[in-house]
Amino acid sequence: MSEQALPVRIVLVGTTHPGNIGAVARAMKNMGLEQLALVNPKTFPSAQAVARASGATDILNNAQVHTSLDDAVADCGWVIGTSARRRSIAWPTLLARDAATEVLQLAATAPVAVEYGPEKTGLSNEDMDRCAALVAIPTTEFSSLNLAMAVQVIAYELFVQRDDFDVRQTEDSPPATAQELEHLYNHIERLALDSGFLNPENPRYLMRRLRRLFARATPDQNEVNILRGLLAQLESDRWRKT
Amino acid sequence: MSEQALPVRIVLVGTTHPGNIGAVARAMKNMGLEQLALVNPKTFPSAQAVARASGATDILNNAQVHTSLDDAVADCGWVIGTSARRRSIAWPTLLARDAATEVLQLAATAPVAVEYGPEKTGLSNEDMDRCAALVAIPTTEFSSLNLAMAVQVIAYELFVQRDDFDVRQTEDSPPATAQELEHLYNHIERLALDSGFLNPENPRYLMRRLRRLFARATPDQNEVNILRGLLAQLESDRWRKT
Repeated sequence: MSEQALPVRIVLVGTTHPGNIGAVARAMKNMGLEQLALVNPKTFPSAQAVARASGATDILNNAQVHTSLDDAVADCGWVIGTSARRRSIAWPTLLARDAATEVLQLAATAPVAVEYGPEKTGLSNEDMDRCAALVAIPTTEFSSLNLAMAVQVIAYELFVQRDDFDVRQTEDSPPATAQELEHLYNHIERLALDSGFLNPENPRYLMRRLRRLFARATPDQNEVNILRGLLAQLESDRWRKT
Repeated sequence: MSEQALPVRIVLVGTTHPGNIGAVARAMKNMGLEQLALVNPKTFPSAQAVARASGATDILNNAQVHTSLDDAVADCGWVIGTSARRRSIAWPTLLARDAATEVLQLAATAPVAVEYGPEKTGLSNEDMDRCAALVAIPTTEFSSLNLAMAVQVIAYELFVQRDDFDVRQTEDSPPATAQELEHLYNHIERLALDSGFLNPENPRYLMRRLRRLFARATPDQNEVNILRGLLAQLESDRWRKT
């Protein structure tokens, strides 16, 4: 069993109950995860979180608090979200066991983030737009897991499978970070609007569909640079004849 | 995915916090388990359990409360215990994933019980004497999982693997129940004492070692009947000449 901490970040968005944050910290420490990011938690720090952490206070003390999800995952090479709700556009979805296998492979080159939404509502569509894929924990029809339980199951799968984990030395370009992908999406959107292709009065999921397309491909940094170079070129007037 | 409830019983021994009982009920319902047995819970029923069950109140309402572990598992064909502590005698130990595979196989012929001890101390050696094997959830050195988390992980493994589950029609004798095994052990002990083989002043784990031996073998009812017939015979005076 490797003793190094996995470069996997648990990102809790809009958590309501501080006890759940503590229970998440305990589950993470049980399973060898160290990076906890909190996006707009309702109450943090709190004595209730410390009590439920049951000794995993180092995870709480080192937790990073952010005001936006983009900040929390900016340096991550792969971002996945957990959700039980059905969506109008199908996000690519992996079962927990398979997702853990993917996470361990991709974490070898850049940090991976696993997002969890607020207890009552789960991730918003906007939060899921930041995700390359969704993770589903198999359940009965009674499908709403407690937040910390959902972290426990994913962390358990990562721990059981991590024997295979090793930091890869690769000649390939590293995967694009979440921030680099956001810049790409913003660039595409700007061009789509400026060109009149995208009607801001009636956007019809265009950007969401494009995000899904690119997320499935998991572009590397070279590829994003190429795309952005192309977009910049298309944006400039230089290529237009009169 | 089979819709029938698995004949797997979660047995909580001496649970201190009623909130944990509620969280266990929720985790069970998420994963298609229905049989909850409580042995000497500190507080039950309780509003805190209902709150943490988050809708899984049917599991709580149907929970069976017992004053002894033997009663809670009397009809079970296989009883396993969860524990993080090291013991002076090694119990046969399975990792959670492998244990779930075994549980699903054995539950096809008789109910299986999975025991969880009190939050602070875990199962006592006496409680573990009722177990054919222990289940270990892999963790870091920070090894103490919250009680409900430990139920969640086992229930998750059972749910993920239950596609393979089917009630077997078998010509074989069903496995001996926990009660039948207790009668066997009591019978052996009585004979060992009466015969002078077992010194009550210095029992030296004799019965525990014999329990381990038989538990590894998972005797069926025929075999237990044969053993008990033999013991009864040895006990009687009839076979002794003069």
